[in-house]
Amino acid sequence: MSNSIGKLFKLTTFGESHGAAIGGVIDGCPAGITLDFKAIQNELDRRKPGQSAIVTQRKEPDTVEFLSGIFDGQTTGTSIGFIIKNTNQKSQDYSDIKNTFRPSHADYTYTKKYGLRDFRGGGRSSARETANWIVAGAIAKQILKDIKINAFTNSVGAITLDKSYQELDLSQTESNAVRCPDSETATKMIDHIKAIKKQGDTIGGTITCVAKNVPLGFGEPIFDKLHARLGQAMLTINAVKGFEYGSGFEGTKLKGSEHNDAFNEDGSTKTNLSGGIQGGISNGMDVYFNVAFKPVATLLQKYDTIDADGNAVNVQGKGRHDPCVVPRAVPIVEALTAMVLMDFYLLDNSSKI
Amino acid sequence: MSNSIGKLFKLTTFGESHGAAIGGVIDGCPAGITLDFKAIQNELDRRKPGQSAIVTQRKEPDTVEFLSGIFDGQTTGTSIGFIIKNTNQKSQDYSDIKNTFRPSHADYTYTKKYGLRDFRGGGRSSARETANWIVAGAIAKQILKDIKINAFTNSVGAITLDKSYQELDLSQTESNAVRCPDSETATKMIDHIKAIKKQGDTIGGTITCVAKNVPLGFGEPIFDKLHARLGQAMLTINAVKGFEYGSGFEGTKLKGSEHNDAFNEDGSTKTNLSGGIQGGISNGMDVYFNVAFKPVATLLQKYDTIDADGNAVNVQGKGRHDPCVVPRAVPIVEALTAMVLMDFYLLDNSSKI
Amino acid sequence: MSNSIGKLFKLTTFGESHGAAIGGVIDGCPAGITLDFKAIQNELDRRKPGQSAIVTQRKEPDTVEFLSGIFDGQTTGTSIGFIIKNTNQKSQDYSDIKNTFRPSHADYTYTKKYGLRDFRGGGRSSARETANWIVAGAIAKQILKDIKINAFTNSVGAITLDKSYQELDLSQTESNAVRCPDSETATKMIDHIKAIKKQGDTIGGTITCVAKNVPLGFGEPIFDKLHARLGQAMLTINAVKGFEYGSGFEGTKLKGSEHNDAFNEDGSTKTNLSGGIQGGISNGMDVYFNVAFKPVATLLQKYDTIDADGNAVNVQGKGRHDPCVVPRAVPIVEALTAMVLMDFYLLDNSSKI
Amino acid sequence: MSNSIGKLFKLTTFGESHGAAIGGVIDGCPAGITLDFKAIQNELDRRKPGQSAIVTQRKEPDTVEFLSGIFDGQTTGTSIGFIIKNTNQKSQDYSDIKNTFRPSHADYTYTKKYGLRDFRGGGRSSARETANWIVAGAIAKQILKDIKINAFTNSVGAITLDKSYQELDLSQTESNAVRCPDSETATKMIDHIKAIKKQGDTIGGTITCVAKNVPLGFGEPIFDKLHARLGQAMLTINAVKGFEYGSGFEGTKLKGSEHNDAFNEDGSTKTNLSGGIQGGISNGMDVYFNVAFKPVATLLQKYDTIDADGNAVNVQGKGRHDPCVVPRAVPIVEALTAMVLMDFYLLDNSSKI
Repeated sequence: MSNSIGKLFKLTTFGESHGAAIGGVIDGCPAGITLDFKAIQNELDRRKPGQSAIVTQRKEPDTVEFLSGIFDGQTTGTSIGFIIKNTNQKSQDYSDIKNTFRPSHADYTYTKKYGLRDFRGGGRSSARETANWIVAGAIAKQILKDIKINAFTNSVGAITLDKSYQELDLSQTESNAVRCPDSETATKMIDHIKAIKKQGDTIGGTITCVAKNVPLGFGEPIFDKLHARLGQAMLTINAVKGFEYGSGFEGTKLKGSEHNDAFNEDGSTKTNLSGGIQGGISNGMDVYFNVAFKPVATLLQKYDTIDADGNAVNVQGKGRHDPCVVPRAVPIVEALTAMVLMDFYLLDNSSKI
Repeated sequence: MSNSIGKLFKLTTFGESHGAAIGGVIDGCPAGITLDFKAIQNELDRRKPGQSAIVTQRKEPDTVEFLSGIFDGQTTGTSIGFIIKNTNQKSQDYSDIKNTFRPSHADYTYTKKYGLRDFRGGGRSSARETANWIVAGAIAKQILKDIKINAFTNSVGAITLDKSYQELDLSQTESNAVRCPDSETATKMIDHIKAIKKQGDTIGGTITCVAKNVPLGFGEPIFDKLHARLGQAMLTINAVKGFEYGSGFEGTKLKGSEHNDAFNEDGSTKTNLSGGIQGGISNGMDVYFNVAFKPVATLLQKYDTIDADGNAVNVQGKGRHDPCVVPRAVPIVEALTAMVLMDFYLLDNSSKI
Repeated sequence: MSNSIGKLFKLTTFGESHGAAIGGVIDGCPAGITLDFKAIQNELDRRKPGQSAIVTQRKEPDTVEFLSGIFDGQTTGTSIGFIIKNTNQKSQDYSDIKNTFRPSHADYTYTKKYGLRDFRGGGRSSARETANWIVAGAIAKQILKDIKINAFTNSVGAITLDKSYQELDLSQTESNAVRCPDSETATKMIDHIKAIKKQGDTIGGTITCVAKNVPLGFGEPIFDKLHARLGQAMLTINAVKGFEYGSGFEGTKLKGSEHNDAFNEDGSTKTNLSGGIQGGISNGMDVYFNVAFKPVATLLQKYDTIDADGNAVNVQGKGRHDPCVVPRAVPIVEALTAMVLMDFYLLDNSSKI
Repeated sequence: MSNSIGKLFKLTTFGESHGAAIGGVIDGCPAGITLDFKAIQNELDRRKPGQSAIVTQRKEPDTVEFLSGIFDGQTTGTSIGFIIKNTNQKSQDYSDIKNTFRPSHADYTYTKKYGLRDFRGGGRSSARETANWIVAGAIAKQILKDIKINAFTNSVGAITLDKSYQELDLSQTESNAVRCPDSETATKMIDHIKAIKKQGDTIGGTITCVAKNVPLGFGEPIFDKLHARLGQAMLTINAVKGFEYGSGFEGTKLKGSEHNDAFNEDGSTKTNLSGGIQGGISNGMDVYFNVAFKPVATLLQKYDTIDADGNAVNVQGKGRHDPCVVPRAVPIVEALTAMVLMDFYLLDNSSKI
C-alpha cells in the first residue's frame, strides 16, 4: 500500500528495476478510444535512459506491451494491463549497496520498514517506476486532447530561467537535451550538468508545468482541490522536495490588493497569480506550477556511510546514474498532470445530470 | 466529492459558515481511548476568530458537541459524529458579494461549476471548515502522544525568521498573537499586520511545522509517500499556494555531495536536509516542512470586479475578515499533520503480522 | 471503519440509538436538485417505530434536520450533513443487557472486539442507524425519478406469497401494516406476527425488491457487478442472512436451456430469470432480488445466557422491540437500492466522453 | 472500474482470455513472507481447465509468473505483479458469437454499455479472470495459515448433499472430480453432469464454504460487515445468483427462540445458526455460507438469439465450455474467502494500539 493513483482514472503499478518487468493496470479508461501507440512510445522515449550525454547511460528500449483492455486498436472499457520488460539489468553493479545504505536514499528506510529490500537497482524505489506513469499519462493526454500540457526545465542548480512561461516558446523545449525552452539558458544548464557529472556529483533543479485549456470546474472541495491533487502527484516523483502553484512561495510576500487577479467581463482574469485555480477549482485560465527536485542521492564518488550492522564504512559509488534528474523528469511531470486532469475530467462528467 | 481525508483514520466533513452547524464524522478512531475534551477545546480556541487584535473580530465560541462514538469518556471504536454550531452569522453582511464575484476567491468558480452557491460567508469555501479538522486533529494528537507536532509562523510578508527551527524555543509559539516563537520577529510581524489591516488590505506568509519522534516507517511507496500525503493535506488549507519539506526549493541549488545527510552509526543522520523522510518513508529524524499562504482575497477596500451578468462593477468590501490567515492557520497545520501521521500509524500497524 | 457506502454518491454515518442524535454526510450529490422534503419525511415515516400494532411501540418522530449542502431548497453540490435527534431513549430499560450478552446479538462481538460497548439500545449495532440510510435513499430516489423501486414483504415465517411480483399490484404494498401487496396473505402474516409477539418471541421473513426502468449499463466488471453491490448493501441491513437475484437459489436446479432468457428482436428478453443483470451489468429489464431476514435476537421472554464474566445467567428480556423486522425493513431495502443505483448512475455518466 | 477488490490486501486485475496474458497486482501483502510457490500452483491446478471429464476440455497450463514484490523467495512489502499467459486460444471458435449475442450472457450488455467488446472467449467477462483470484487467494491462505478454509460442492441441479458440513469429512473433497466430500453423492453428481454434457446443455449447483479458526473480531460496522464483504466477493464470481450464511434463507422461517445460539460459558455457542458472525463481526465459531451458481449460459446446442442488428437468428453453439461450473468454482470460492479474511486480518491489526 499504496501503489494506486487516481479515483476514476486509476493507475496501479508494480515492479522493481531488476525483476522481469515493471508494469501496471489502468482502470477506468473510457471505451472506444482509438489509441495512438506511436505517441505513447514517443513519451516513453522522452523519459528513457541513454537519450543524451547528460543523463544516465543505461540503454533500455522501454517498450510497452499492452496485455488487455484494447481490441482492434480501441480501448474496450475494461482494465488495461501492460508491462515494460527490464532488459538492461547489470547485477554486478550492486556490490557497493548490497550491504550498505546510500545516504539520503531509500535504502535505509526500506530495509528498516520491511525487514528486507531488493537492493538491485534501488528495487521498488527506483525511478524506473516512472515509466509506468508515462504510459498512463500518454493515454490520458490522448483523451484530453484539447488540454495542452507542457513542462520544461526552469532551473538547474543556481542557473534559472529569467523569463516567465508566457515569454517562452514552449515548442522549443524538446530542441535541447536539458529541455529548457530558452536555448541560451539551456546551454548553460547542459554545461553545468556536464561539469557536475565529471565530479561524480549530482545537482538539483526545478520544473515548471503549464496546462492550457483546462475547462472551468476541475477540482473538488474540500480535500480534492485541483492543486492538492497535483501537489500529491508531483510529490510522489522521486527526488521531489516541493510544489507551488501560481504565485507560490513568492506570493506570500504580496498584499491582497497586489495579488488578486482582476476580472475581465468574460470571467477571465487580467493577471493569473492564482495559477488558474480558485478555491481549488480551475477557473479556465492557464494552470501552472513549479516542482523542486533535490540532487539525486547516488554519487559516483567515494562517500562515508554505514553498513547493515551499523559500522561506518567508506564506499566507492558505482553504476550508471543521472547527474541531474530534471531533464528526464519533464515528461514525468506532464504524465502525472495528465492523469490528475483525466481523473477530474471523468469526475466532472459524472455529476452532469 | 470529496469531503473525506485519510484512509484508516478518516474524517468526512460538511458545513457552510451560515448553516445551523458544521461538523464531521471520524471513522477509524481506535476504541478505548480516554479523550481529554479540554485539550480538544483548547485547540479549537487556538483557531477561533476574535482571539486577538490581528485576526478577524467575529466572535464565535466554536464549541464542539460529540454525538456518537464516545461512551463514558472513551472512544468505542464506532464512528465519532460531531457538530460545531454556527452562532455568529450576520446575513446582512453579504450584499457586496451576493451578486458579484470577489477576485481570486472561490465565488466565481463555485458558481460556474455548480450553477449556484451559498454566498453567505463564503459557503462551503469558508475557512470555517477548518474547525472540523481541528477536532479530528486534536483527537489524533492525543493518540499519537509521543509524537510532538509544533507549527509556527515563519514569515509574514517579507518579514522572515532568520533562525532555523532548531535554534528556536518552540514552547514560545503561543506567547504572542502571531505565533512566532521569536519575540522580536513576532513584534515586527504583528505591527506589519496591523498596518496592513488599517489599509483594509491583507498579507501572506509562511508556516513551518516540525514533528518530532515520528517513528521510522511512516509512509508508503509509491503514491502515499509521507511527504506526498502531508503535501496534499496542506494544499487543502484555504489560501495555501505551496509546500516544501526538508531542504525544499533551496535544496535544488545544492550538489548531491552537499545535500546528502551522512549517517551516524545508529542510523540517525548528522544533518537533516531530507526533512526526516527518505524514499517517502520517515527515517526517525524530525519531519519538517514549510507551507505558503497567499494574502486572503477578501479586501475591506473598494475594488473592481464583475457581477453575475459579467458587468464591471466597483464594490466596497465589507465584513470581518483576517488581514493575515497565518496566525490562525498554525493549529490547522498541526491538526492536519496529526491526521496524516495517525493514518500512517494505523497503516503501519496493520502489516505487523 | 467502515461507516461509508458508495463511491460517487457516498453516505457516511454515525450514531448510537442513545446519543444525542444519529446522522450522516452525503458526499457527491449533484448540484441544482430541488429537494422534496415532504417525500423524504414520508420515507422516514414508513420506517419509524410505533406505526402499527405489529412493530415496536417506541415512539420516535424521526425528523431529519439538514445542516448543510442545501440552499434555497436546492442542493449546492457540497456535502449534505444531517442529523436525526434521538428523543425516546429510556435508559432504564437496559439493566438486562448491561452486563450480559444477548444470544445471537452483536453484544458479545462488539464487547470482545472493542473492549467496551455502548450497551444502551444496542449502541452502534442498533437498527436505528437505518434511518440515516432512508434519508440518503430518499434523495437518491428523487434524482433517479424514472427508476421505480418497490420492495414488499414476500414471506413471514413459513407464510409466503404464492405469486410472482409480476402478478401483484405493487401499489397495494402500503395498504396494510405488513407491507405485503396481497391483502389475503397480508392478513395471515399480520395474524402470525401478533401471535409470535404474544409469546415474546420473534419471527423472520423475506423481502422482494423490484427496480423498473433501470437503464442498460449499470454495473461494472469485475468487482462492482451490479448484483454484487446490491448484495453487499442488503447484507449490511441488520438481521439479513441472504441475498439472491433473478432465479436465485432455485435457478441452480435448472438446465441452461431452461434458464437462458431468449431475446426479443429489440434486445429485451422473453423471460427474465437473469433478474435484469447479465455479466454484472443491467440489461434494461426489471432488476429484482430477494433478501432473507432472520428472526431478531432480542426476545421478551426469559432466556439463558452468560454475563461479562462468563457466568451462566437467566435473564428476562425487556424493552420495546420488533417481533418481525420485515415490515419496517421494506423502505430500508428500497433506500439502499436507490443509493446503489445512484452510485452507478453517476459512474456511468462519468465515462460518457 | 472497478477491477480491484480489498482495502488493505488489494488485488487489481486485468485480462481477457485471448490477450497475451491475464494478470494482476497485489497491493498490501506484508513483507517477509516466505512463499510456497508449489502451493500456489497447486491451487491454480485445482481451477484449471481439462482436469477431468466433467469440465471444459481446454488445455491450459495456467502457470503464474511473478514479476515483482518477491526477492529471494520472500515478499518485500512492495506490490506483487504477476501474469498468467494465455496459451490455448483458438480464435476460429468464435464465428458463432462474433455477431450474435448468447442469451443470458454478458455479450449483449458489454456491447451495449461499451459500444464494442472483445468477443474472443468472452473477453473480460470470461471466467478465466478467476485464475488471477486464485493467485492472490493462495498467498492469503499462506499468511492466514491457522485459518482453514474449505469449500465443497453441495448440490448439482437437484442432487443435494443431505448432510451438514459437520457430518462430512472435508478432507475427501479433492478425492473426486466434482469436489463433493460424500463419495456416494459425488458419483450421482458426476453422472448427472455427464448426462447434461451429452445433451450440449449445462446445469447449476451450490457450493458450501467453511472457514475454521477465524479469530473473533473480523468484520467492521456498518458497511463492511464480514458477511457483507463475503457476499460481495462471492457475487462477483461468474454465474453466481445468491449468497446466504449461517441459517440463510431457511432461517427466515424460524422463531427467535429457535434461532438464537445459546452461549457456553467460554463465549462459544451451543449451536451456530449465526454462521460464526454476529452483528457483522466474527465470533470465533465456524464461518460458513452457501453460494448459488446458475447453469452457464453457453450451450453446445442450437439456440435462437439475435444478431448485432437485432435480427432473429438460429446459432449452433460451439467451443469448449463447462457443463457445470461448480467443481472448478470450489477453489475460487476459497480464494475469495481467503482474500476477504486477509483484508480484515490487516484491518483488525491496524487498530491494536
